[in-house]
Amino acid sequence: MLIPVILSGGAGTRLWPVSRKAHPKPFMQLADGQSLAAHTLQRALAVADANEVLTVTARDYYFYTRDIYQQVRDRNSSGDRSDCRFILEPSARNTAPAIAMAALSIAARHGADACMLVMPADHLVRKPDSFVAAVSRATALAADGHLVTFGIQPTHAETGYGYIRLGTALAGDAQAVAAHAVAQFVEKPDLATATDYLQQGCYRWNAGIFCFRCDSYLQALQAHQPVLYAGVQALWESLSAAQTMPLELPAAAYAALPSISIDYAVMEKAANVVVVDADLGWSDIGSWKAISELYEADDMGNHLRGPVKLADVRDCFVQSDQRLIAAVGVSNLIIVDTGDAVLVADRERSQEVRDIVSQLHDEDHDAATFHSTVYRPWGSYTVLEDADDCKVKRLVVKPGQVLSLQRHQRRSEHWTVIRGTARVRVGDEEQTLQANESAWIPVQTLHRLENPGSEDLHLIEVQTGNYFGEDDIERFEDVYGRV
Amino acid sequence: MLIPVILSGGAGTRLWPVSRKAHPKPFMQLADGQSLAAHTLQRALAVADANEVLTVTARDYYFYTRDIYQQVRDRNSSGDRSDCRFILEPSARNTAPAIAMAALSIAARHGADACMLVMPADHLVRKPDSFVAAVSRATALAADGHLVTFGIQPTHAETGYGYIRLGTALAGDAQAVAAHAVAQFVEKPDLATATDYLQQGCYRWNAGIFCFRCDSYLQALQAHQPVLYAGVQALWESLSAAQTMPLELPAAAYAALPSISIDYAVMEKAANVVVVDADLGWSDIGSWKAISELYEADDMGNHLRGPVKLADVRDCFVQSDQRLIAAVGVSNLIIVDTGDAVLVADRERSQEVRDIVSQLHDEDHDAATFHSTVYRPWGSYTVLEDADDCKVKRLVVKPGQVLSLQRHQRRSEHWTVIRGTARVRVGDEEQTLQANESAWIPVQTLHRLENPGSEDLHLIEVQTGNYFGEDDIERFEDVYGRV
Repeated sequence: MLIPVILSGGAGTRLWPVSRKAHPKPFMQLADGQSLAAHTLQRALAVADANEVLTVTARDYYFYTRDIYQQVRDRNSSGDRSDCRFILEPSARNTAPAIAMAALSIAARHGADACMLVMPADHLVRKPDSFVAAVSRATALAADGHLVTFGIQPTHAETGYGYIRLGTALAGDAQAVAAHAVAQFVEKPDLATATDYLQQGCYRWNAGIFCFRCDSYLQALQAHQPVLYAGVQALWESLSAAQTMPLELPAAAYAALPSISIDYAVMEKAANVVVVDADLGWSDIGSWKAISELYEADDMGNHLRGPVKLADVRDCFVQSDQRLIAAVGVSNLIIVDTGDAVLVADRERSQEVRDIVSQLHDEDHDAATFHSTVYRPWGSYTVLEDADDCKVKRLVVKPGQVLSLQRHQRRSEHWTVIRGTARVRVGDEEQTLQANESAWIPVQTLHRLENPGSEDLHLIEVQTGNYFGEDDIERFEDVYGRV
Repeated sequence: MLIPVILSGGAGTRLWPVSRKAHPKPFMQLADGQSLAAHTLQRALAVADANEVLTVTARDYYFYTRDIYQQVRDRNSSGDRSDCRFILEPSARNTAPAIAMAALSIAARHGADACMLVMPADHLVRKPDSFVAAVSRATALAADGHLVTFGIQPTHAETGYGYIRLGTALAGDAQAVAAHAVAQFVEKPDLATATDYLQQGCYRWNAGIFCFRCDSYLQALQAHQPVLYAGVQALWESLSAAQTMPLELPAAAYAALPSISIDYAVMEKAANVVVVDADLGWSDIGSWKAISELYEADDMGNHLRGPVKLADVRDCFVQSDQRLIAAVGVSNLIIVDTGDAVLVADRERSQEVRDIVSQLHDEDHDAATFHSTVYRPWGSYTVLEDADDCKVKRLVVKPGQVLSLQRHQRRSEHWTVIRGTARVRVGDEEQTLQANESAWIPVQTLHRLENPGSEDLHLIEVQTGNYFGEDDIERFEDVYGRV
């Protein structure tokens, strides 16, 4: 029994302005129009026994992740019966506690000898068949009680990754993917050391993908991290026996757990760690430069997405959602536009984008966290105008979804339906609006918006008043638990 | 009698994306928040006799220019009685015909011996006192029958300008600005020649500023361009004796005139041409590099306007209206954002921006011509959303202005007043709306919008339907003559 566990956490600040806290790296779309999270789920379903996948993520990312997964399942055969389960973390405690909660959950459901395959949600694997083969070898080793990690053959002297030094080769079927004992985990090296590792050939990149039995991991945790182990056990036992999905972990107890990575907590300490060779076409997509390298360049060395005009431009990566980007006589730049912000970076220094995000965070700038399009459990809104005297949004409400019953103290709202059907409650009145019909919600009036149709509802909301912050929403009823 | 004549013509494609055909270079705002056209009018009023200024421009630029002028006059003393007159060109025929029409108009009004001071609307003069002194000398020479041009002492070996070689110095008051006969007009030189001119010291840049009596210019035109002279005379005589301002020239007759610059037509050929030394702090603002050189740089050599975040950026000019620009590890770039487009150019190659504009023109791309904010005689509109299923605009209607009585075949409109007062006619109904009130204009319904108040009217217009082009406006009555 193999249950994939997808860890979907960090914001990926080096990929700003596309990746932001409210819409992080796993949700980024690649050139094929699919998100990293969608690719990861497809990869997981390809190896999952019982069509079951467990995702550990933050509450804020739950609804959007669920929607991405639903789209993946819709694209799969109509008889898709995959079971996408979720554990929602109330705070981030790094990977070791998250994996422990997943292990306890899977053990309770499938037995302690069930295997788990731990995968980050935001990495790219371009060789899915090799992935299946590597997982097959890893699962066999995990079933024998090993803690298995996936090693990527280095292609260049990378200083941004941890390395694994190979030990003795493990015996196995000639057809099977090679596996070795782990001689040593080593920290991110300097360039000379990384170059040496590359030449020696007996080093692998640590890809952050793991496979083990639930009990193997929990025993290793008990042996090497007794405090963390005791904490997760106590937390688990405190949960109701009748757990519903998504499983929301208790905030205080989870926040009290040590914050530690699986590498530090277990893998670097345990004796039964092995590494399988994983020729995955792997990338952690850690920077704009890494993304630019995913694609074939054109004759001038450029990679372009969106409306771009160039005059004598070389070796640039230019991406725009919608707005026109023009470049003249430049080279080796990353230019990325997201509608509300544009990044211009030296291609070789794209890692330093996080310095910009730090500046924005320090100033509490919205663009550090939010896009002009903000995703909500019921759909999304895009800010079209944000002025002192009005705010204009395009709202998209998914079929069957309903916003909270709410009111505002400092703004009125004017809704005009563009597409679909809206059921609108204003005060005690309820009406159904079609395209080209509108409604007015006076200040301080209870109101609710619902899409009773089977297509997306699009409407333009014009807010008038003197304050338009998201904190001027008083919620009375909410199907998404936000009251 | 000295009448300044402001020539306001070309689009300034090298300053895209800020300068575009629908909102050209004279309307560009400098760092002080004022447009080049406003600066030019102020400069003109400072030397104008009888407080009279004549502007020759295109019909499309008339209303916006008039508004800029009104703001300048409002800022001047409350007793401003300046008279800003306009001649509107139905097509562009270069400078010689435009100046000829101005000469005929001024001669008819003030006599043929009145002097005219011809000034481009889109150049910068940073030493207004020197300008007044140079004009004073030029006027005295013009009164004596000379054709006077203004020569700028070169500060570097510029290859983008025409040069004037100085001839004999003219006698004059020791206090007066120096003046010389013109030995020769020379074409834009190559770099070696320009360097030579710079070292010789007896060359001046031709700034495109001229001063002469009306009859001096017309006589020179008659002598050297008899066809053009006959054409403008015939055109002038065809005009009604009772001319109203703005004076709109007849399209067919004007288009039939030779298109030729004053330099080629007259200045390079006439014998009575002199040049006054003009130490004006002059710039033709011909490129983004030229603009970047107007300002003091910060410690890192950067000049920044608008919301900009930098990480180790040097010697860049970064300008944004509203959107966030972030730059990382780059140098010597021009980065300019206008909301709907962003330019990234090597600072030394910013002249090549016109290649981008050519590409956009060839593809009939809106961004070659229009901004997201479009100026109309009644005010302006800004496009907030332009999608297949709706278009959203913010309209600003100036006090007392009224849009045409119109209807649309393919869209309905929903108006919500944000600020000010709207008088709205829909079908045969008329109503007055205040902030937070709205109106609906069904498809194919006659409607009209007016601002009866004394403050700007701001409203959000949501268009629904399946086509939102500006050509779906059927106008029935229009106070601006657009029916």
